[in-house]
Amino acid sequence: MFQTIEWTDEGVVMLDQRRLPEQETYLTLTSADGVAAAIRDMVIRGAPAIGVAAAMGIAVAFQRYEDVPVAERPARFDRDASLLAATRPTAVNLFWAIDRMRRCFQSHRLDPFPGLAAALKQEALAIHEEDIDANRAMGAHGSALLPQSCRVLTHCNAGALATAGYGTALGVVRAAVEAGKKVAVYAGETRPFLQGARLTAWELHKDGIPVTVLTDGMAGHLFQKKEIDLCLVGADRIARNGDTANKIGTYQVAVLARAHEVPFYVAAPTSTIDLQTATGGDIPIEERGPAEVAHIGGRRVVPEGVRVIHPAFDVTPNRLIAAIITERGVARPPFEVSLPGLCGQAAGTTGRVARPA
Amino acid sequence: MFQTIEWTDEGVVMLDQRRLPEQETYLTLTSADGVAAAIRDMVIRGAPAIGVAAAMGIAVAFQRYEDVPVAERPARFDRDASLLAATRPTAVNLFWAIDRMRRCFQSHRLDPFPGLAAALKQEALAIHEEDIDANRAMGAHGSALLPQSCRVLTHCNAGALATAGYGTALGVVRAAVEAGKKVAVYAGETRPFLQGARLTAWELHKDGIPVTVLTDGMAGHLFQKKEIDLCLVGADRIARNGDTANKIGTYQVAVLARAHEVPFYVAAPTSTIDLQTATGGDIPIEERGPAEVAHIGGRRVVPEGVRVIHPAFDVTPNRLIAAIITERGVARPPFEVSLPGLCGQAAGTTGRVARPA
Repeated sequence: MFQTIEWTDEGVVMLDQRRLPEQETYLTLTSADGVAAAIRDMVIRGAPAIGVAAAMGIAVAFQRYEDVPVAERPARFDRDASLLAATRPTAVNLFWAIDRMRRCFQSHRLDPFPGLAAALKQEALAIHEEDIDANRAMGAHGSALLPQSCRVLTHCNAGALATAGYGTALGVVRAAVEAGKKVAVYAGETRPFLQGARLTAWELHKDGIPVTVLTDGMAGHLFQKKEIDLCLVGADRIARNGDTANKIGTYQVAVLARAHEVPFYVAAPTSTIDLQTATGGDIPIEERGPAEVAHIGGRRVVPEGVRVIHPAFDVTPNRLIAAIITERGVARPPFEVSLPGLCGQAAGTTGRVARPA
Repeated sequence: MFQTIEWTDEGVVMLDQRRLPEQETYLTLTSADGVAAAIRDMVIRGAPAIGVAAAMGIAVAFQRYEDVPVAERPARFDRDASLLAATRPTAVNLFWAIDRMRRCFQSHRLDPFPGLAAALKQEALAIHEEDIDANRAMGAHGSALLPQSCRVLTHCNAGALATAGYGTALGVVRAAVEAGKKVAVYAGETRPFLQGARLTAWELHKDGIPVTVLTDGMAGHLFQKKEIDLCLVGADRIARNGDTANKIGTYQVAVLARAHEVPFYVAAPTSTIDLQTATGGDIPIEERGPAEVAHIGGRRVVPEGVRVIHPAFDVTPNRLIAAIITERGVARPPFEVSLPGLCGQAAGTTGRVARPA
């Protein structure tokens, strides 16, 4: 098996997802700058995974700050946290994880260095471990929604590669398969980065779960042919009302699902729910560079001088979502009621301190 | 300017569309086998263009049959016609053009060789010329449907490169621009072959018409942002009831257009209308090889062993189509009435002798 991200004595080790499926290579990073670049350049991606990466980035950098005077620690922490927070704007797990690290730092900032460094490392490891646990719990809740035999359309990669392990949407698939259900997955290739073709297909195929790749333009045809029983996707940020930002292309899958009367589910940990963002219109959508669309595998496919757009995410409005599967249970519409309920319930607070970019 | 396909003394010359936009190279073909391979391998594509190519393929091959006894001519003709008809099943223009060549052959099959060879050449040239004329007429009819200033979403390439010249959907855009309208085109890249990114962008950019490329998954987001005023696509075969087969991905654009209350237009010559095919369900949909989806620019993007699908076309049901623009005028619903009317009207017959595969 593979590890998406791991803490080792040498540093934070990440599977370089840009090289899959051809090569399974790992990078070892020992600074906040290195981890920030890895997030920005998509060595690692997926909302939960980049939350873990940011936490480990802060912690791994801090291990080397023994000589930094106590008075200068906050500035050092802030620098690293800002650097990591500036990598990608949409996935809220990034800010959520940085906030957790910040609270840990606040509690221990006056401790002797070994205690502070160990606390930060422990917090990052806890975020990592809790994410896997959340995915397993999400799988158990979500798997109940899947028929005994079904064909699931997913988009992008919401799998082990997008999380600390197991996956959100693909965690639900895995749990259903473990429960003896017969699940076949259709994976939209997800241009421009091809996370569906390269990553979802790779990890499901490794697990022996049947997966079929389609280009993003083929989804409608499959719905029309009644080849899809349900849709299951991950999320990068879920607003208080249930509007969900996810990889570009998700919204149109949801429109197609509705037009063909197929249920559309979102699977995400509560760390992806941003109660401080009222609606999807308030979620910042990352615009990435045109080169990622204009080139494929080194070949230029769009003529020089032609304009290219590259919104990296879109927002699926709550009315198109049948349910949001979290580690604390399944939220149903109206999400304005169910999501704060789910989040508050276990946390014992009225909301979490997610920080929008 | 470029020529998509041209008759020369050396043979049939085609722009190799597989190499665009990087290279503008031309192939010269002198046999039916060569032209058939070019159609199958997508050197040339687009329903009207492959109709012209098949006609020229038959004619160019026949120029060399001087020594074939008169009694063996029909067998030779049939062999070439069958070869060309077997290249691609969906676009009906292919069968329509071959039928025209067959009727020409029947009329002249007992003529002295120079007369027969010249007649076949003349018929192929007429099909070529009439296609350009049809596109110009279609442009004039269609341009009236476009607002003075508008943003048009198109899919695949229904331009000069898909026809003998000028284009069907892009012919309408060109005519609107020539009429002083302000038209900006959004071109879906159209995986797997990227005809939108590589071809539509290339020919519109050459003409100075503003064009923006998006991945196929971004269309929904653009509709949601109210960036699209209308959709305009070509067609590979239009059934008697108006159901329209076109490049895979077209159907979902039509569903999105309807969901966002944006009109969806089809532009095609009457040679694309197949009155003998009752509904879209009767149109054969070509399934192409998985390698075209699994590899991009030589790089394998889908892991070995993973299943890939590749339907090359889909069918947009008539209920999603606001109008079908032809060289004889604009057909409106109910298409069961308007299409036979348009086709019969000028032809003076109840239908054309298109031959489904």
